[in-house]
Amino acid sequence: MKNTIGQSVAVTLFGESHGEEIGCVIDGLAPGIPVKEDAIAHALSLRRPAGRISTARVESDSFRIVSGVFRGVTTGTPLCILIPNSAKRSTDYENAPRLARPGHADYTAHCKYHGFEDFRGGGHFSGRITAPLVAAGAIAKEALAALGITLGTHISSLGEIRDRDFADLAADFAALNETTFPVLDDARAAAMQEYILAAAGEGDSVGGVLETVVLGMPSGVGEPYFDSVESQLSHMLFSVPAVKGVEFGDGFALTKMRGSEANDPMRAEGNGATTLTNRAGGIYGGITNGAPIVFRTAVKPTPSIYKEQLTVSLDTGKNETLALGGRHDPCIVHRARAVIDAVTALVLCDLLAQRYGTDYLSPKK
Amino acid sequence: MKNTIGQSVAVTLFGESHGEEIGCVIDGLAPGIPVKEDAIAHALSLRRPAGRISTARVESDSFRIVSGVFRGVTTGTPLCILIPNSAKRSTDYENAPRLARPGHADYTAHCKYHGFEDFRGGGHFSGRITAPLVAAGAIAKEALAALGITLGTHISSLGEIRDRDFADLAADFAALNETTFPVLDDARAAAMQEYILAAAGEGDSVGGVLETVVLGMPSGVGEPYFDSVESQLSHMLFSVPAVKGVEFGDGFALTKMRGSEANDPMRAEGNGATTLTNRAGGIYGGITNGAPIVFRTAVKPTPSIYKEQLTVSLDTGKNETLALGGRHDPCIVHRARAVIDAVTALVLCDLLAQRYGTDYLSPKK
Amino acid sequence: MKNTIGQSVAVTLFGESHGEEIGCVIDGLAPGIPVKEDAIAHALSLRRPAGRISTARVESDSFRIVSGVFRGVTTGTPLCILIPNSAKRSTDYENAPRLARPGHADYTAHCKYHGFEDFRGGGHFSGRITAPLVAAGAIAKEALAALGITLGTHISSLGEIRDRDFADLAADFAALNETTFPVLDDARAAAMQEYILAAAGEGDSVGGVLETVVLGMPSGVGEPYFDSVESQLSHMLFSVPAVKGVEFGDGFALTKMRGSEANDPMRAEGNGATTLTNRAGGIYGGITNGAPIVFRTAVKPTPSIYKEQLTVSLDTGKNETLALGGRHDPCIVHRARAVIDAVTALVLCDLLAQRYGTDYLSPKK
Amino acid sequence: MKNTIGQSVAVTLFGESHGEEIGCVIDGLAPGIPVKEDAIAHALSLRRPAGRISTARVESDSFRIVSGVFRGVTTGTPLCILIPNSAKRSTDYENAPRLARPGHADYTAHCKYHGFEDFRGGGHFSGRITAPLVAAGAIAKEALAALGITLGTHISSLGEIRDRDFADLAADFAALNETTFPVLDDARAAAMQEYILAAAGEGDSVGGVLETVVLGMPSGVGEPYFDSVESQLSHMLFSVPAVKGVEFGDGFALTKMRGSEANDPMRAEGNGATTLTNRAGGIYGGITNGAPIVFRTAVKPTPSIYKEQLTVSLDTGKNETLALGGRHDPCIVHRARAVIDAVTALVLCDLLAQRYGTDYLSPKK
Repeated sequence: MKNTIGQSVAVTLFGESHGEEIGCVIDGLAPGIPVKEDAIAHALSLRRPAGRISTARVESDSFRIVSGVFRGVTTGTPLCILIPNSAKRSTDYENAPRLARPGHADYTAHCKYHGFEDFRGGGHFSGRITAPLVAAGAIAKEALAALGITLGTHISSLGEIRDRDFADLAADFAALNETTFPVLDDARAAAMQEYILAAAGEGDSVGGVLETVVLGMPSGVGEPYFDSVESQLSHMLFSVPAVKGVEFGDGFALTKMRGSEANDPMRAEGNGATTLTNRAGGIYGGITNGAPIVFRTAVKPTPSIYKEQLTVSLDTGKNETLALGGRHDPCIVHRARAVIDAVTALVLCDLLAQRYGTDYLSPKK
Repeated sequence: MKNTIGQSVAVTLFGESHGEEIGCVIDGLAPGIPVKEDAIAHALSLRRPAGRISTARVESDSFRIVSGVFRGVTTGTPLCILIPNSAKRSTDYENAPRLARPGHADYTAHCKYHGFEDFRGGGHFSGRITAPLVAAGAIAKEALAALGITLGTHISSLGEIRDRDFADLAADFAALNETTFPVLDDARAAAMQEYILAAAGEGDSVGGVLETVVLGMPSGVGEPYFDSVESQLSHMLFSVPAVKGVEFGDGFALTKMRGSEANDPMRAEGNGATTLTNRAGGIYGGITNGAPIVFRTAVKPTPSIYKEQLTVSLDTGKNETLALGGRHDPCIVHRARAVIDAVTALVLCDLLAQRYGTDYLSPKK
Repeated sequence: MKNTIGQSVAVTLFGESHGEEIGCVIDGLAPGIPVKEDAIAHALSLRRPAGRISTARVESDSFRIVSGVFRGVTTGTPLCILIPNSAKRSTDYENAPRLARPGHADYTAHCKYHGFEDFRGGGHFSGRITAPLVAAGAIAKEALAALGITLGTHISSLGEIRDRDFADLAADFAALNETTFPVLDDARAAAMQEYILAAAGEGDSVGGVLETVVLGMPSGVGEPYFDSVESQLSHMLFSVPAVKGVEFGDGFALTKMRGSEANDPMRAEGNGATTLTNRAGGIYGGITNGAPIVFRTAVKPTPSIYKEQLTVSLDTGKNETLALGGRHDPCIVHRARAVIDAVTALVLCDLLAQRYGTDYLSPKK
Repeated sequence: MKNTIGQSVAVTLFGESHGEEIGCVIDGLAPGIPVKEDAIAHALSLRRPAGRISTARVESDSFRIVSGVFRGVTTGTPLCILIPNSAKRSTDYENAPRLARPGHADYTAHCKYHGFEDFRGGGHFSGRITAPLVAAGAIAKEALAALGITLGTHISSLGEIRDRDFADLAADFAALNETTFPVLDDARAAAMQEYILAAAGEGDSVGGVLETVVLGMPSGVGEPYFDSVESQLSHMLFSVPAVKGVEFGDGFALTKMRGSEANDPMRAEGNGATTLTNRAGGIYGGITNGAPIVFRTAVKPTPSIYKEQLTVSLDTGKNETLALGGRHDPCIVHRARAVIDAVTALVLCDLLAQRYGTDYLSPKK
């Protein structure tokens, strides 16, 4: 399905870095969900470049909802969000020789689209295209919150610098929602920013790991095998540009444990069961067990760097040396946080609607 | 789509550990692909338990192809493979109290299916259900090989013990194909087996990391965003039981590099380009760049262990202590190798058929 | 998706006329639905050739359910039904020159599969492959009946002979369920059978129209545009071999009415509304309105006839005259009834599960 | 998938009658297809109300392409077309009591969306939402034409008045493309318009049958069973508002023939075969046979009429009498022609891309 994902709640993404507008369509959202423009604006602000650690291209990220909302709530029919590209500088690109940026999609897009691709600013492959997903995710997050399902993501490590672990989830989620640099420990946040600036000073970039926790998902959601919660989440997470790894619960660290340590002991609680640890990240056999869903995504260093790189010309096919100009982020990990939160919320809505039907997310059901 | 995956080449999986037969249907395979029964039998033999490091339940894995093959080649219509469950001992389960095995799907299946699930031996959630995928994958691998696309998987680490890296890929692939314990360095293989036996001796289990390399995929395959090669592969990989992490190229290690190290320098080669390193694992912007596809999957320790564990009864909802009997693997990492190879081959066939059409894998096109 | 259809409840079909077994997999059925083997056997008996008006190839249609049922009810995981091909006579085909039967898929399968198709008895394109759908549909019908949703299909016309209209739906459905020749008026049934025998006597065949009514579907099911109830039903109905037309409500006859006649007047009833007529066949804007769903399918005359026909050889590409031998039906309209009922029930289950969630069809929800 | 359809070439539809903009996203179109704004404008003009036989609400149908086109050709990434709703008069609706229009989706949308739907002018269910499909279809038609695949649709009957049959297809297609009232015989066109005006004079409406022919499709396209060409086309055709019947080839008329008449005799031609008649409408066993694809769609009379009708209030649930005001079409058959052509072209592109790969429709392949 290419640029559409989801079964009961589906998202379709479109747009290019230097097009007139970018946007997405969310289909299958239950009717009656409040659409709060300030919540969308706030989510977009968490994705926006800010200060010295980000690109100088700052978009206003004004947005328009052209369908699917009536009298302030979702109608249940497709909701289209449009975001204008106001800060583009296409003339930067029009006449420049096309040198493939290593690590970026320039070369592979050229292979796939035979040179017809809109290459300006990375075209459809630009990280900019994730902005509409963030807007859509903000609506999904509101719908989940009304059901008591909340989530938050922090930078668990940037290079070798690690944040503290999640502690009081509600408080941590609230704090993360108020900052554009989502780190729980202030001292480590400062160290991380220095680490970014040091790389930026050399025309280089850095990557990091984002850790996400979801609280409140009911047990029994997901499917065996091909539609496991891990499968559906990872499918979406790996569609976020720069993500190169995804692990659930203790993930790769589980491979160094024994079963007796990796298995989460279970105890009766209410009508069901709870686990004393959560090494499985809330998912057994592809299906939620009621514990928090926990996963981490590896975000590679931004490929667009100023340091000289060996590459090829897409025009001539010849070897070239690339010294990139323009406006680029030395780190996108903090900005990617908003995208990870958004796409997670969208997948959770889809999982719930698959399981419990279209109206599950509706205030009137 | 639950137990069906794939767009142009799709697989549907069915069966339970103690049912009469298990199987799968592959649809969308090109017509004319040779179906070699010995290649299927060989692939199944690589998944079969063997020796002291595996369960004592050894299935003959005889299989029957009941559709989709005519005169030794695929017809192009759905191919159904059936494998009988010959070695089941259902009486082990019929009257036993149902205690949820920590780390296994027992509890979540109960939440999802309200107690109607076939719980014997894990039912549909048993690792046994992956056998038909291995059979299907063997056909897919043959079709890929005819196009010059080959792949291999080794245990890159088991606990803290690491295998050597891939070197001569063709030779390494050939060697891996001849052993049920897919480790490239014999001394480390021996160390790993001791590590397994040590855990087994204590009624415990271990996990590990599998590394897969695919050689020969053309560039320009895959889609931006939601159908990126990473998205499609990870979706399938996370549907393999016990997989809790997936990373492409240098994956999580990329988060500790700078961009100048993470980016693969490019040089002209033939009509296209090659990369001097392969930290991206052959995928830029979700699309193949012609370099080998490289990924690693984290396989958690087998959850079925003999050590006493805290759990709950699915019959009474009360707390219980579980001391598991029956026949279980102390390690499934080596057996999971055959499954990872198989599902990788199936996804690659689907990617190629999406890109180049139904007949791409056909000898007559 | 080729041989898989459905979103929440999906069916995958496989097999060939002369293969060892044919079958299907139903996925997404709620857990706990009773699976009555006699109901399946009865449904299959309504599809079976019977008496002088049918082919002499009579299959016993014994069936096996190899997964997805435990202790007599559905588990919620994929249910695979297998039906052996016991009455095949492959030697009829092995060495015969391959002449394309006009009106059949012989030629188009040859174009699509390049000669690799299993052509014996029509292979995967044989009407025989619908038997597993009938078995699957029988389970779906039971699940619907438990919710008060019933359906029935009669031959509304065969050639120029028309059956009477539905009257007392419950009584008519019951009567249709007891006969292999589903006609409501006995005298017209006799006339239709004579009409078939007259054609058969000349080595020819006939077609007819089937009319289906569904009672008890709730209002508000279906989607606008691409997943309208008409779209989803017609997609499935046109996959039944020999169906060449589908109309809902008054269908083509609506094109001769004025709006004032075609519109169904509405009156308040209970918490909703009812319609005084049902020219729309229970569907407004793609969504059920609570009135009975009504549609008709046009079944063309069986293409396999004994009369001489002009055709081409698939072996040589040369012109030939075909004088078909073997065992063929002079009419399949009455047998197609069982298939239409089955696939309708499967689509309805899918529509309900999409709308109300996986468990809607479960006795325990 | 609700408002998204297609596998290799997919369309997502959004918007409401009184929203700011309506639009659609086409994904999977090959790169390099020329996008001619005048061809799109012309297609939209064929859908636009014109003269006395149409509604007085005339939209300018200006459109914007905000993504997926670069330097005048498709990029291969999603193409989003937006059309502003310039001529809406929402105040007509805001304070009116909501009486369900019989035959329209007002009541069923209310059941499905619980009153949250945007009801103004039919909201998402308005025929207006088909305008973006027409724009998208115009691009698809250009891509097909470059491969020698052409199509045309005429009103084969309006009420009891029949047009002449197609004769010289190329000439007929050309003539149809130049008129907003697609009838081949001028005298019958005049009679049809009088028939419309007579109904309009009484505040009533009429329906008709559209017949479509596709020329140039290669043989061997489509799938057995669930993705038959009939299944895929009918799925889309029944998503066009007001379509209540679809038949292929001779359709319902086949049910009155014998097999010897219904079967198309075949003769060798070139490397393949041709049929001497085309009663099957170019499709055998769900797969194209190389003959023209022929189908007819039944378009019911416009449900919005001025005559008094019995209905219910969606506000109070009480019985009411509806005397509709506002601007409505007495006939939409001629306007629906543009929609049928468009969606047909989109399905054909999808069928070809499924079969032959993404690049099949690209000028550079």
